Amino acid sequence: MSTVNLIEYEDASPAVRAVYDDIRATRKTDNINNFWKALAHSPAQLERTWQQIKAVMAPGALDPLTKELLYIAVSVANGCEYCIHSHTAAARSKGMTDEQYAELLAVVGMAHQTNGLVTALQVEVDDMFKVR
Amino acid sequence: MSTVNLIEYEDASPAVRAVYDDIRATRKTDNINNFWKALAHSPAQLERTWQQIKAVMAPGALDPLTKELLYIAVSVANGCEYCIHSHTAAARSKGMTDEQYAELLAVVGMAHQTNGLVTALQVEVDDMFKVR
Amino acid sequence: MSTVNLIEYEDASPAVRAVYDDIRATRKTDNINNFWKALAHSPAQLERTWQQIKAVMAPGALDPLTKELLYIAVSVANGCEYCIHSHTAAARSKGMTDEQYAELLAVVGMAHQTNGLVTALQVEVDDMFKVR
Amino acid sequence: MSTVNLIEYEDASPAVRAVYDDIRATRKTDNINNFWKALAHSPAQLERTWQQIKAVMAPGALDPLTKELLYIAVSVANGCEYCIHSHTAAARSKGMTDEQYAELLAVVGMAHQTNGLVTALQVEVDDMFKVR
Amino acid sequence: MSTVNLIEYEDASPAVRAVYDDIRATRKTDNINNFWKALAHSPAQLERTWQQIKAVMAPGALDPLTKELLYIAVSVANGCEYCIHSHTAAARSKGMTDEQYAELLAVVGMAHQTNGLVTALQVEVDDMFKVR
Amino acid sequence: MSTVNLIEYEDASPAVRAVYDDIRATRKTDNINNFWKALAHSPAQLERTWQQIKAVMAPGALDPLTKELLYIAVSVANGCEYCIHSHTAAARSKGMTDEQYAELLAVVGMAHQTNGLVTALQVEVDDMFKVR
Repeated sequence: MSTVNLIEYEDASPAVRAVYDDIRATRKTDNINNFWKALAHSPAQLERTWQQIKAVMAPGALDPLTKELLYIAVSVANGCEYCIHSHTAAARSKGMTDEQYAELLAVVGMAHQTNGLVTALQVEVDDMFKVR
Repeated sequence: MSTVNLIEYEDASPAVRAVYDDIRATRKTDNINNFWKALAHSPAQLERTWQQIKAVMAPGALDPLTKELLYIAVSVANGCEYCIHSHTAAARSKGMTDEQYAELLAVVGMAHQTNGLVTALQVEVDDMFKVR
Repeated sequence: MSTVNLIEYEDASPAVRAVYDDIRATRKTDNINNFWKALAHSPAQLERTWQQIKAVMAPGALDPLTKELLYIAVSVANGCEYCIHSHTAAARSKGMTDEQYAELLAVVGMAHQTNGLVTALQVEVDDMFKVR
Repeated sequence: MSTVNLIEYEDASPAVRAVYDDIRATRKTDNINNFWKALAHSPAQLERTWQQIKAVMAPGALDPLTKELLYIAVSVANGCEYCIHSHTAAARSKGMTDEQYAELLAVVGMAHQTNGLVTALQVEVDDMFKVR
Repeated sequence: MSTVNLIEYEDASPAVRAVYDDIRATRKTDNINNFWKALAHSPAQLERTWQQIKAVMAPGALDPLTKELLYIAVSVANGCEYCIHSHTAAARSKGMTDEQYAELLAVVGMAHQTNGLVTALQVEVDDMFKVR
Repeated sequence: MSTVNLIEYEDASPAVRAVYDDIRATRKTDNINNFWKALAHSPAQLERTWQQIKAVMAPGALDPLTKELLYIAVSVANGCEYCIHSHTAAARSKGMTDEQYAELLAVVGMAHQTNGLVTALQVEVDDMFKVR
């Protein structure tokens, strides 16, 4: 249960509907995810967040699937259940194979382990890693 | 400053030297990073961690650069300074361009933001994301 | 489901009832939240935690609503679902408006984003920020 | 040491200089913090982040000092050293008194403690906290 | 709901069944926890994780109950609901008393509080704590 | 560098000196750690925190060394550098052996790894773990 009610298309203001329409057109789906329906209580926040995510997740020097994998990795470390589910689904819809998912999990698990070990040991950064 | 002294090759036991030698051969470098020198107080932990990381970071369904990018993303979310520096350096040595790094940062920043918003709003997972 | 059973007023020891009574009197409600009922397995921990929270959340140099907003912000970053719900409800009962809540969300989202960016970039603290 | 070199005004492109100029004008200072100088490797990210922070931190339903206190609280929970220093300095420059800072610390410490206790006990959300 | 279907013994490959059999023999139970059934999509990851946990959690310089308490403490700080429940149950089955659990909670709560305070204050490490 | 100046014994108020004196007597040392000197700007917070930590870390159902190990584990997961150093030093002074430290590190690393895997997979809690 969210801390606010979800705003459906039928009940939305014109400013919110405009964002919902752009989400639908960009993603080629009629569905609007709960995240946007919760954010819509602040049309400015909804608009700002959607515009950013549209720009950031577009194809560029990194391909859209790689960006989804990175999004999953961050969401796991931050413990965001909703984000893990939505971006795992998005990665699958963008072609993530079972083998890729298994390797993603392996890297995520490994990184958590060495993050923990390094932090416990408070290892100092090697000079060779430093930017000149 | 680390919580233990670093064990240099000259002072290492044969079991530790064997791992150091494998790191050098696998990575085609004479350098042994501080992380391994700190872990070496427990040869079993050193061996176990190195064998895992060698297996997990090898080319597979995901390429080695993508794995480094994922490692950076997790390390940032966990706030591990050493890991951020070492894997950013590793990503660069594996060909990460400035444009790719900029997009990595954009995705990481965006994911942190929406992780925070979703968590604050406690948005419920959409049915469509659920695995059947 | 919690890891312990909840201790209801009827089943509580006199030491626990005394804390429950003080919570009811201080908060002007008959309700005892699940948190206290779970903590009550250790009357000392219950007493210590309640006394602290009563002292810390009382009006002072910061007003009670500002303190609730801060509590929400920390709870979001720590991913504590229960705490997010209970302190969002408390903030509303202390007068938080929808506009204030929207701005709280915006600051929380923004802080998460720049926290992620700064940590990824490992930016050094400017001299001007340092306390003399 | 950051993972990238800092871009000074003298070496910046016109797009970056335009943001630097707006930061200086908005904040009424000649100083550009290291965060912006590190972000400037991606003029688009620099521009997007600055425009957001300018909008989010402006006076509104919450006053600018309250927003800085919230920023500190999130940054502490995320362990972002740079952000803690920069926003503590910003809060002081916006009038945070020693008494307010002491109470901020008390709330932050208390929230961390109860976040930990609630999470350990996995307390279920009370029905009364739920949004209808 | 997990992001993958759980693999039951009946549907498992011989490699996965071999790990399930070893879990059952080692733990003297017929039950296989959901974690292993989810991991089993990658037999290599399942095998690697199980072998590690078997080695790490075995009696040694620290007794098995102390190791479970440590596992709970880490899982709480990382906000892993499943891990908190499974390791709290494991600790109880290894003899954790109510008094020990109450003290574990007290230390966990205290550590979270002082972690938050120290991080907010950015206290510098005392020279006396440094390893020579 | 901390966000506040450290308050030395010579410059402390009588209320602060009383706490410093109790720390010295309890710990049988002349040294006052930086944490207390930073907290001392709020004598009430100093007093409250010290009284709690004295109560919580005293011998009880868990021995003082186990409590220090738990404190390290939480501090690692929260990324608190100061806390990691101070409690690792405290554990050593209370008799932690190199073998115990190595096993602590192994459990901490393992817990971080499985926390990450479980969170990524969003594994549901087994019925058998649930408290009746």
